[in-house]
Amino acid sequence: MAPRILICATIVWAQEDVQKLLGGISEIMYMDSPDRASFLEACRPGGRYDGVVGIYRENESAREIGTFDKELINGLPLSVKWIAHNGAGYDPVDVHACIKRGKRIYLSNTPGAVDDATATTALYLLLSTMRQYSLAERSLRQLEWKPAGINESAHDLTHKTLAILGLGGIGSRLAELARAFPMRIIYHSRKPAASAPRYCEYFTNVEEMLKQADVLSVHVPLRKDTEGLVSDKWIRTLRRGAIIINTARGKVIDEEAMIKALEDGHLGSVGLDVYPNEPNVNPRLMEFPNVTLLPHMGTENQDTQRIMEVRALTNLRDFLLTGMGKDLVIEYKGQQAKVRQLQFL
Amino acid sequence: MAPRILICATIVWAQEDVQKLLGGISEIMYMDSPDRASFLEACRPGGRYDGVVGIYRENESAREIGTFDKELINGLPLSVKWIAHNGAGYDPVDVHACIKRGKRIYLSNTPGAVDDATATTALYLLLSTMRQYSLAERSLRQLEWKPAGINESAHDLTHKTLAILGLGGIGSRLAELARAFPMRIIYHSRKPAASAPRYCEYFTNVEEMLKQADVLSVHVPLRKDTEGLVSDKWIRTLRRGAIIINTARGKVIDEEAMIKALEDGHLGSVGLDVYPNEPNVNPRLMEFPNVTLLPHMGTENQDTQRIMEVRALTNLRDFLLTGMGKDLVIEYKGQQAKVRQLQFL
Repeated sequence: MAPRILICATIVWAQEDVQKLLGGISEIMYMDSPDRASFLEACRPGGRYDGVVGIYRENESAREIGTFDKELINGLPLSVKWIAHNGAGYDPVDVHACIKRGKRIYLSNTPGAVDDATATTALYLLLSTMRQYSLAERSLRQLEWKPAGINESAHDLTHKTLAILGLGGIGSRLAELARAFPMRIIYHSRKPAASAPRYCEYFTNVEEMLKQADVLSVHVPLRKDTEGLVSDKWIRTLRRGAIIINTARGKVIDEEAMIKALEDGHLGSVGLDVYPNEPNVNPRLMEFPNVTLLPHMGTENQDTQRIMEVRALTNLRDFLLTGMGKDLVIEYKGQQAKVRQLQFL
Repeated sequence: MAPRILICATIVWAQEDVQKLLGGISEIMYMDSPDRASFLEACRPGGRYDGVVGIYRENESAREIGTFDKELINGLPLSVKWIAHNGAGYDPVDVHACIKRGKRIYLSNTPGAVDDATATTALYLLLSTMRQYSLAERSLRQLEWKPAGINESAHDLTHKTLAILGLGGIGSRLAELARAFPMRIIYHSRKPAASAPRYCEYFTNVEEMLKQADVLSVHVPLRKDTEGLVSDKWIRTLRRGAIIINTARGKVIDEEAMIKALEDGHLGSVGLDVYPNEPNVNPRLMEFPNVTLLPHMGTENQDTQRIMEVRALTNLRDFLLTGMGKDLVIEYKGQQAKVRQLQFL
């Protein structure tokens, strides 16, 4: 009998790819549970989802069954061995619950697939805040043409200094795009990035980096140790008039400290794509005319959505064929040899 | 007696540079005429501006005295020999009136100085329209988070084809910025641009170029022969769903044809920084949620404003010292040797 796969998704762009990648090697089921209770019910022994070994998951499924938190992970059929998450940030899946379960579940994400689209969103926020384009468009649409004195608060990007916090795939991609101006690129990561382009200058000391930045762009994942990482102290270490861009996760920045720094003019602007409690946005942010606020548009376009789906589905396919997907998340580091033994076909 | 210079400007960012560049070699006067009539009065023999040989002009001065049209040019003191216009587009100065006047006036602009800032504005419009960021921000600010299905109309820039109409300084700079993704860059000019980067593909036939474009970005100056250049026929030659970006001049595009193509969905979006009758914007444009509309932000930032001023003032300085500024506009082509004979100091 072919192993059973469950697709937890509200939309699948690459519908034909699901068949192409998984059709011949698995029995594909689509989630049809309207809410969490009925989902968990179907997971029980003898339920519709019993026997499922792999799950494809995308974030919109949370509208029906919520995130993959501890309760949901622990309620999955014991047969489940792999969750292929569609997205780079996998904070909506409780990876520790996956690891701690009696029958361990492995988790993959789609890191490379999001780099281009997310870095493009960061570049857009960089342009909009440095040049005050968002404010300018709002002014035009209120039939006021351009705001008086807007050029006093607007700057060229060229030759300014961009500080990247976390030079992974997205940060490196942003470096490539910003280098075209050129901007000077400086960065801080836990250690120098092996793949960093030559023109990216590494700072061991994050505060030394912050002092030199015209713009800080945040590219670290949300974990316990990164919550509130961009603190009041870090914000105050930036130059007066500096800009913060965030396309990572809202909780990585101390929002209260950021708002206070906007109020007293220490920050020149912020460009945000993410917020601590999405889809809610702190209404105080809306009071600053000079900020740019996007509704988590990081990867929102059909080209990248399709690339991400294919990547996640390929991880599931690789798991079925070899016992191992390419994008096992970092918490399983060193366990890849072990995982390879799980082979199905 | 030092030659007299007249500064026609509402703001001068580089105030100290005026002294530095012109102080020692000329008598500097600032325009103090509240309207055109009093300006022309002061230009008459014996008037305050009589004897002025060089004029520095920036666009905001039009609020007081209007553009440098035929009437104004013909009213200038006969002593005027050079107008240093601050801006790349010099359509607010009637160059033909300058040439035809009994005592010819020479006109310079500031071409290179605007390239970076204007191309950055074009890049912003490219990002905003391809990814639908402007629509997304409006949705968030109406407390509606992201518009349903926005990813269906949004695309990555990477590997798409950007067609540049007019590969001068601004078009070339945009090519550099878009190449970072990379986008494929194709272009049409009257002849292949000598300075075109290798990766820019030249099309003799503009319609062949239009057929291959995902985005058309317009970078030709407004002249009699470019008015309405982007016609209904050209727009319909673009693929369905294509995007037009305009940071040049509004009148280069047939606005009615463009609006019709938005209405029937032939155009996927437009990103505009310029309009036929600025500061008026055709209200029908505001009815399309998917377009991005900026209030002529091309060079609106303090870094570039200062660079442009210094460039225009340097043209005036060079004229005073050598009889010739660097940026004599194209209508005087071949006359540079003659101009050099006008030497003052």
